[in-house]
Order: sequence, then C-alpha cells, then structure tokens
Amino acid sequence: MNIPDIDLPRIVVIGAGFAGLKLARQINTKYHQLVLIDKNNFHTFQPLLYQVASAGLEPDSIAYPIRKTLRKKKNTFFRLVEVKSLDSETKTLHTNIGTLSYDYLVIASGAGNNFFSNETIEENAIPMKSLTEALDLRSKMLENFERALNTQDLDKRNELMNFVIVGAGPTGVELAGALAELRNKILPKDFPDLDLRQMKIHLIEAAPRVLSAMSEKSSLKANKYLKKLGVHIYTETFVENYESNLVTTSVGKDFRCDTLIWAAGVAGQFPNGIDSNKVGRGNRIIVDENLQLDDATFVLGDTALINSEKYPEGLPMLASVAMQQGAYLAKQLNRKAKNKSWKPFVYNDKGTMATIGRNLAVVETGKLKFQGVMAWFVWMFVHLMLLVGFRNRVVVFVNWTWNYFRYNNGLRLIIRPYRKKKG
Amino acid sequence: MNIPDIDLPRIVVIGAGFAGLKLARQINTKYHQLVLIDKNNFHTFQPLLYQVASAGLEPDSIAYPIRKTLRKKKNTFFRLVEVKSLDSETKTLHTNIGTLSYDYLVIASGAGNNFFSNETIEENAIPMKSLTEALDLRSKMLENFERALNTQDLDKRNELMNFVIVGAGPTGVELAGALAELRNKILPKDFPDLDLRQMKIHLIEAAPRVLSAMSEKSSLKANKYLKKLGVHIYTETFVENYESNLVTTSVGKDFRCDTLIWAAGVAGQFPNGIDSNKVGRGNRIIVDENLQLDDATFVLGDTALINSEKYPEGLPMLASVAMQQGAYLAKQLNRKAKNKSWKPFVYNDKGTMATIGRNLAVVETGKLKFQGVMAWFVWMFVHLMLLVGFRNRVVVFVNWTWNYFRYNNGLRLIIRPYRKKKG
Repeated sequence: MNIPDIDLPRIVVIGAGFAGLKLARQINTKYHQLVLIDKNNFHTFQPLLYQVASAGLEPDSIAYPIRKTLRKKKNTFFRLVEVKSLDSETKTLHTNIGTLSYDYLVIASGAGNNFFSNETIEENAIPMKSLTEALDLRSKMLENFERALNTQDLDKRNELMNFVIVGAGPTGVELAGALAELRNKILPKDFPDLDLRQMKIHLIEAAPRVLSAMSEKSSLKANKYLKKLGVHIYTETFVENYESNLVTTSVGKDFRCDTLIWAAGVAGQFPNGIDSNKVGRGNRIIVDENLQLDDATFVLGDTALINSEKYPEGLPMLASVAMQQGAYLAKQLNRKAKNKSWKPFVYNDKGTMATIGRNLAVVETGKLKFQGVMAWFVWMFVHLMLLVGFRNRVVVFVNWTWNYFRYNNGLRLIIRPYRKKKG
Repeated sequence: MNIPDIDLPRIVVIGAGFAGLKLARQINTKYHQLVLIDKNNFHTFQPLLYQVASAGLEPDSIAYPIRKTLRKKKNTFFRLVEVKSLDSETKTLHTNIGTLSYDYLVIASGAGNNFFSNETIEENAIPMKSLTEALDLRSKMLENFERALNTQDLDKRNELMNFVIVGAGPTGVELAGALAELRNKILPKDFPDLDLRQMKIHLIEAAPRVLSAMSEKSSLKANKYLKKLGVHIYTETFVENYESNLVTTSVGKDFRCDTLIWAAGVAGQFPNGIDSNKVGRGNRIIVDENLQLDDATFVLGDTALINSEKYPEGLPMLASVAMQQGAYLAKQLNRKAKNKSWKPFVYNDKGTMATIGRNLAVVETGKLKFQGVMAWFVWMFVHLMLLVGFRNRVVVFVNWTWNYFRYNNGLRLIIRPYRKKKG
C-alpha cells in the first residue's frame, strides 16, 4: 500500500466509527504516523439511522466525510480499502490493494448483523446497521405504499402495509415509534386515498420486556408509549422463520408482511487472522483491561469484549463506550511515546436513553431515571452534541424543529440505484 | 388501475417534469379529474443535476416529492407506475399494473439520452439525465480519487483522474466548470497526498463552438471562462468510440480515461402506440400550435416538436418552454370546460443562460446579453426562484452562500446501493 515510510511508529486503525475516529483525532502525530482504513469514505452516526429509515432525516445529515475531519492532522492518512486479514507475527495487514505493515494495530471494525445462522431470514429481512440499509428500508417502505394503492387485492395490500420489527432494543423501539408517528401524522397527508389504519407495526422481542438492558421502570414506560402510538408488542416471542412474506414465531402466532426489519442481533466483525480462542460472546475479541490483545494489537468499541474483574459481563455496545475507548487509547499511546506509564481503561457509565416519539423518551443516567418530555429534550440535546460537524448539527436541529411545529418531516424521496440497461 | 370513476372528464398526464407538474398544479379540478403518472415519486430539477454530480448539492435539494405538491388539490391522483403503451382508438393507457382509460391524455414524458446507436458508448459512458445517474457519477468520481491514491501505476492513475465530457451544451459546460473548480479549490484539501494537477478535464464538442445555441459572444466568453478554469476544449470533434477506457475521436486525438460523461444528445421518450409518421427530429412527437396530436392527446415539453410557421425549427428543450406549455394547456383545458374559446400556444422567449463557475456566467435575454459576475448572480437568482418548495430554496441558498465564502461545498459522501449478500 501506498503510505510513505517515515521514522515514526505507524498506527493502523481499522474502522472509522466512534472509536476509530476518536482515536484518529486525538492521537499525537508528532510521535506517530496514523493510517485510518474504512470501507466507506464517511463516518456514520448510527444512533440516528432509524430516522433516515423513517424518512425524517436525509443521509447526509448523519454521515460525515472522514477526509474532512482529518484535514488538519499531519502524518495522517485515510484509505478507502477493504481489509482481508492480518498477520500478527509479521505485523502485516492484507487488503484488497496489497499489504501494509504496522507497529500498532487498532481493530475498531464494529459489529454487523447477527441472524443466528437463519439463512432465510438473512435473505429476506432488511437489517439496520448501515446507511445504505437504512435508505433501502425507506425506499421499500414508500414503494410499498405506492404499490398498496395500485392493488385491489386486500390480502396483498395488508401484506404491503404490515411491518414486523424483530428486536425491541433501542433500534427496534425507536424505529417502531418513528414508523407509528409516520403513520399517525404524516402519511395520511401524502396518501389521502389510502386507509392508513391498515398499516400495522408489530414489534417482536425474545426477552420478557422491551428495552431489556434498561430498568424495569423505563421498560414499562417505553411499553406504554409504544402502545399509545399504536405499536403491537409481542414479548417472549422468537421469530423462527421468514419466507414468502410469512413470519412464523415460537408462540404460534404468524404474521404476513412484505417488510421484516431485523434489529435483533449484532455480532463483532473483524478481519481473518484472530486466534479463535480469543473470540468470545457475540463474536467479540477478548482483550485485557488495557484493551490489548497482544503487544502490538488493540481492540476497541463493539468489537472488543473486555475481560476483567471490574467488567465481568464486558461492556455494552454503545457509542459512548466506543468513544471513551478511542480517547483512552489515544491518550495511552501518546503517554507511552513520552515514556509515561500506561493506565488501564476505566469506563465512565453515562447511562442510556431511547426515544419513542414526540415528547416520549426514557433516560437513565447514574441513579437518575426520568421519562417523558424532559427525557425527550435531553435525548435530542445529547444526540445533537454527539454529531460530528457543525453543518450536520445545524441541519438536524433545523429538521427537528421544523418537524416539531409542522408535523411534516423530510421529503420521502424514493431514490433507487442507477442501473445500466446493459452490462 | 385503481382510480375512482367520477362524472368529470379524466385527464391523464404522463410525466411529472416541468410541463406535467405545472399542468397538474394549474388545472381546475372542479371540472376535471387529474391523474399524474411518473416512474419516480419526485420531481427532479434537472438544471442543477450537474451540481449533484459534482457534490455541491445533495439530491434532496433538487428533488421534490410529487405527493407533497399535490396535497391540497382535489380530484387529483398520483400513481407511481410505468406506462407501457397507449391506444388512442379506445383512449386507453397500458401500464405495468393494468389499464387506465382517459378523456384527455397529456404526454410530458421528457427526453432521455441519445447515444446515436453507439452501443459501446451506451454501455460505458455515464449519462446525466436523472438523479441516480448524477449520484452515480459523483460516487464514481470520488471513488476514482481514492483508487488513484492506492495505485503506483502512473498510467492507471492518469486514467482514473482523467474526465472526458462529451457535448458542450449547457450541461456539459456547467459540469466541466464545476469539476474544474472542484479540482482547483476543493479536492486538494481532501487529498493532500494526491497531485491534483494530474486531473484533466476534457470537453469535446462536435459543433464549431461551445454553447452553440447561444450567441457567438456568449460562446466566446464561456470558452474563455472554461480555459481560465483549466478545461481543455476540443470543438469540431466527434467521439467515435469508448471501450476499455480508450476514447477515440474523428480528429485522430485519443484519450485514456476511466470516466466518460455523455452530455451530447437527448431524444424524446414516450410510450409505444404513437404513429411513426408523427415522430420527427430528435424522436419528438409532432404537434400543432395547440400542442395537440389528436382530439384527445396533447404533447408538452421536450417530447413535443411544435410544427407551425411561427416556430419552423420547433422549440428548444428548455425548462422554460416546458413550464409555459404546461401552464398554457391547463389554461386552455380550463377555458374549454367553461365553454370558452381555445387559443394557440405562443412562446415567450425568456432567453438562456449557463454558469461556468464562481462569478462566471453568460446570460442572454431578449436583446440583452451580459456575462461575468452580474450574469452569475442573475443565474443563481433565477434558479433559486424556479426550484419547487420553500425548503429546497432555503437549502440551496444556504449551500451556495456557504460555498461562496468558504470554498467548501458539500460533503462528498460515496453512498453506494445496498446489496444483499445473497439473492
């Protein structure tokens, strides 16, 4: 690979998510050369993907070009490259355009979808982990309403207007709420000749309650909010199969739907070359409290399963964890370069939150738990502040404000990929 | 098709471009039922497509959802449908979801690309007539710079950084100027480790001068502006072939490039069922000065070739012509419904304009011809006013203003279509 060889240790970071980008921005490049690798040329603000899917935000509001964030950093290189495998013996990375040697390797490649080996679900469901997936869901949803208008077959129309969301974690809950608001307030204006009451949103969860990672109180509130918006909730229910528009579940209840959204499982993703003994629960790489796999390799964010007495269960797959780990590793590497001592990672739990709809959110931070309007404003404020880039913050803020007063968010364009007639 | 039968004449409009949308908005639906059909759910502001391609504007700034524009109109239906053919004997339209009868048919389906039967060019070139094509060009261009960084092969790198634009009409000229500004001012910040001087922009034109539809003076000025920005211009040159990244021309000069943009020819597009004797130059349907093909059929905009003494050459394929014709036909149909007399179409020539870059534009309106900064501001003002939707106007205005002061337009995201692993 085409990176200048200079007389500084080379840190190669795989992944420009919350962890990788934070590290890249905070590393001191007086002491290091930094190479950041990603398969996209932009950073995705994943917590708001569901708003792109529900046509509330445009993709450019929650994506930020990596080159722009790194513009002012010296000794820093971004490469749009796919990593194939790594060889920790020779400290070499193999990519689709050749090899790259490293002094330090940082694996921050995040998590992908986990379909638990169910191939028919993998084939037919729409996942929600990337911008293109979110856009695909949006286009499919809007096309389905157009198609529903064009059919006289009532069963077919119901299938087109039924949405099944599998997984009631934050993503599933937030998407269910957003779809319900779309149905209740926005789509009836777009489709006056379609009976939107026929649109059903089913949220299916294997655990006994929604948002099971949060307290019982928050969970109950979220449940109440969802029901208020008209979402049908099925807990302790496993989706067993999804084929020919039929969803079958462990409790005998079946659903006919054209759109099944998979928000039920994620798994760490990383290049080949990691010792399988080092891979733990959720396909995450087991690291020590220095986030270290071996002398030269560190793992951050969703990909890392920290194994220490302090965190017997590891840490949750949250943006907040990833950012703290990115900042931590940058700091330690900077300290090491100055011959200062290395300190173990300490997680500062900032809590969790989820928004269900307008004025409806749940927040837990430390011992403080609150819900409703206040929680909703806190949720908005925190998410605005976390967005990368002044422009994105302004665009999202203006969109949200406009939507709050006008109930009319987004443009709902169906932009499908360009296909050549030939070839 | 699923449209209620009511006791009013049904007008079916094919195409929600400038002509079709104007007609739909101005028709009096007290006297008519209106059905608007398009293969997209949005109206595209084609004059600014080149700014989407050059990453200056996001697609949602120049697209406007059709349902939103028609929200307040009664007896008005939009359908996302592909028209296959028409039968003027029985006044029936055949579509991919069944048939639809009409009392009046308005063909406003616009123009598509014309590759003059050159299949290799059609296969390998990127056209610029739709939003997805513009987005595809943008992604390809940005990917090519990333790829150029990743190769050590100088010839390959030059191919990746060479851009050939065929056709120096407004689209070709505006795109060439935008790419040149991108190279001169913006890309060097994104790609500090790439020598952008290697990026070449070649503009090839068969006519003796650029913007040949405008006056010689404007043409000369545009030529000067393009050269100032560093665009290479080749007039009286025909592109003969484009295969394996090699462009061959009629004058013996060849170009190696990975990206050839086709802005050289358009041709009317319309459903099957039109008498071939009624199809004239540029594959446009020949109509009389009432824009009428037969008793029940009208043709508007790019698809219409008006055949009258007043306009022996027909009318140019311009947004302004299309909008006037849409408004004209709505008015005449409204008059007819009230038993008032029908008047022939009179074209009000508002002139033409093209922008080459910052402070560089040419404008011709009536006898007034001017160029430079003033022309550039006029160009911006007119385009802002023509955009549909308050939101789009604000977004484009803010983008342009920001870019004017900061030389930093757009986010340059490479968002590629989502592809399933399987199926």
